[in-house]
Amino acid sequence: MQKGILYLIPSPLSDAPLEQVMPEYNKQIVTGLKHFIAEDAKTARRFLKRCGYANLQEADITLLNEHSKSGEVGALLNPLLNGHSVGLMSDAGCPGIADPGAEVVALAHTKGIMVTPLIGPSSIVLSIMGSGFNGQNFAFNGYLPIDKMARSRKLRDLETLALKQNQAQFFIETPYRNNQLLADILQVLRPETRVCIARNLTDSKQSIKSKPISEWKKGAPDLHKEPVVFGIYKG
Amino acid sequence: MQKGILYLIPSPLSDAPLEQVMPEYNKQIVTGLKHFIAEDAKTARRFLKRCGYANLQEADITLLNEHSKSGEVGALLNPLLNGHSVGLMSDAGCPGIADPGAEVVALAHTKGIMVTPLIGPSSIVLSIMGSGFNGQNFAFNGYLPIDKMARSRKLRDLETLALKQNQAQFFIETPYRNNQLLADILQVLRPETRVCIARNLTDSKQSIKSKPISEWKKGAPDLHKEPVVFGIYKG
Repeated sequence: MQKGILYLIPSPLSDAPLEQVMPEYNKQIVTGLKHFIAEDAKTARRFLKRCGYANLQEADITLLNEHSKSGEVGALLNPLLNGHSVGLMSDAGCPGIADPGAEVVALAHTKGIMVTPLIGPSSIVLSIMGSGFNGQNFAFNGYLPIDKMARSRKLRDLETLALKQNQAQFFIETPYRNNQLLADILQVLRPETRVCIARNLTDSKQSIKSKPISEWKKGAPDLHKEPVVFGIYKG
Repeated sequence: MQKGILYLIPSPLSDAPLEQVMPEYNKQIVTGLKHFIAEDAKTARRFLKRCGYANLQEADITLLNEHSKSGEVGALLNPLLNGHSVGLMSDAGCPGIADPGAEVVALAHTKGIMVTPLIGPSSIVLSIMGSGFNGQNFAFNGYLPIDKMARSRKLRDLETLALKQNQAQFFIETPYRNNQLLADILQVLRPETRVCIARNLTDSKQSIKSKPISEWKKGAPDLHKEPVVFGIYKG
């Protein structure tokens, strides 16, 4: 039997109209699928609805999130092995980038299932583009350690990579800890190191600014509870 | 005077219909601009035409590529300082990612010009999504060294980062050297290391496969002159 296709379907980062953040084609793919894997059922249904999905109650949404057990991931592929295509969705942004979806994709490859990523918004990618940092050499580091000492050490390590390897460094934080992270950045890193703060991407309040630490120190923004991507690079 | 906005405008990677690879909104932005910065005038004009740009001969396209001198970049911002928005375009994919656009963006930040990245295709991002490798920690390394010895050393260094730091590693090669790079990868790295080969992205011949080196050795594909992104990660 011909296997289904695993579509990787980006989700919106904000309430901006879908026409602004994803190709029309994505709606066609989404509305043609019955099986979905998502982090959160409510968020997934809301997105399907925005795509014009006709029979929401018939959409088969299986959850994959921090509560999923490693052994359960295999079962998520069953529809694919039975010939049905599946849409893998993140809560926000691109599946497989800073979300739990990569494990499903990895398993799909071992089963010879075709993987087709669709195009859409990713806060990390928009931040890399918008930072003006090195687009030929960059790393995304996910979340930094929560412990203050370990975090300061990690920040210095990333600054060293930026300086010595010419590699721009990007990372994120849980939104209610953004201000603490920014305070640490301003305290720990060199005054000439450039910091990019990319906030509320694709939203009407979107802002992307890259400045040296010495400039940011003149007036640190309040980032509390905002979605932010941070970047650092040599000055 | 209010400054213009620097729009970062992704370009198609293939001849796939625009509706498949970018939001409708991008066309609105593109057709509303007069000033553009592009790597190649012919490619830029072809894209503007596909977007439905009305008066192609009135589009003011300034080139930024490997022939541009560092001092010339400043002049590219003049329309912005005079209140006109500018579209920065890559030959293919997202400006600021693996292209020369980052320098313009960096300069725009120093002049307080608003930078607005649009959403669209990036072969690097689609490869990261489609690889099934670590989406919480990854690096893009651009081109590897051409010298065989230096390249083998770099490949081993990247494998070590993948193994020890859990960081997925992505890189590219000039298309006519792809087969040589793949031969080196298969020769130099451990049999259990996973390699992702993402070919012809967004094209009808698109293929994304992740397999251990030991599997790839059973039949290496012919990648000559195809656009390819390579990834490596621990097995």
